[in-house]
Amino acid sequence: MAKIAALVGEMFEDVEYAEPVKEFRKAGHEVVNVGLKAGATVKGERGKEKAKIDKAFTEVSIKDFDAIFIPGGYSPDHLRLDKDAVSFTRDYVMSGRPVFAICHAPQLLITADVLKGKKITGWPSVIQDIKNAGAAYIDEPVVEDGNIISSRRPSDIPEFVKACLKRLSELYAPV
Amino acid sequence: MAKIAALVGEMFEDVEYAEPVKEFRKAGHEVVNVGLKAGATVKGERGKEKAKIDKAFTEVSIKDFDAIFIPGGYSPDHLRLDKDAVSFTRDYVMSGRPVFAICHAPQLLITADVLKGKKITGWPSVIQDIKNAGAAYIDEPVVEDGNIISSRRPSDIPEFVKACLKRLSELYAPV
Repeated sequence: MAKIAALVGEMFEDVEYAEPVKEFRKAGHEVVNVGLKAGATVKGERGKEKAKIDKAFTEVSIKDFDAIFIPGGYSPDHLRLDKDAVSFTRDYVMSGRPVFAICHAPQLLITADVLKGKKITGWPSVIQDIKNAGAAYIDEPVVEDGNIISSRRPSDIPEFVKACLKRLSELYAPV
Repeated sequence: MAKIAALVGEMFEDVEYAEPVKEFRKAGHEVVNVGLKAGATVKGERGKEKAKIDKAFTEVSIKDFDAIFIPGGYSPDHLRLDKDAVSFTRDYVMSGRPVFAICHAPQLLITADVLKGKKITGWPSVIQDIKNAGAAYIDEPVVEDGNIISSRRPSDIPEFVKACLKRLSELYAPV
């Protein structure tokens, strides 16, 4: 099994957080919510889901996790205001371990300055930001480039989760 | 007096829309809400303000307005999904008439691809996007470069409004 950090802040997209987390756990993986303040509860933008932050970025090391998962909504816009969130993300991506990114997640990756030369997908509003960051925007349900697996929107979740779980099963021993 | 188009979509920052609009009107200017659907009502992200869309982007011409005003919050992220909103914004900025932009407003200007070589300010989460778009991010309450007047956040509103009104009074005859 793998230990996955879900990087989550206020106004995350409810289903983009909840569905993959449910599926990751169902497959036997552990999910830890990493955010700005340990013990705080952050809310989904649609008011349907909540997430309790288990650990702050200042309390964790990239070595603690086998993968990171970045849900969309406005959570990435909140997280990228925090220098510890940005440096953790940058270091994690550079480590080569798996990064699962959906919807607005590229915003955090752009501020972490790790997209140059990469192929990635995401929510259509950030297409120009992705291109300006030196990456290629690919309009597909799932895009895999090196350690980054990305998807565009809630309707991509089934294919996104499948690709993430496949990657985890290739890298880490089954439970 | 001037006729100002407020480009406004869902989840605008309440006070960043309401305060400047109030002050523009108090100074004798006319404000028209331009958005995705005429007759629709869009809500502020804090649930405190609403705005009724007077005209859709498809119904207006850049010649109809003496200035445009782009409030922040998540409104620019919604507007930049719409090709008519983006092309209207691009054409308006290129026309040389005044553009008043606060907070997340640079997101719409980035997708409109009009920031190369410009000096601009905005909400800190979009700093990297601004730089990647070829603009210089200036951390000041008000930044004026050519026809674009920009500010960072709600606390900049008094200085922002003052600069916008000054520009209008220089360009257009008093009421």
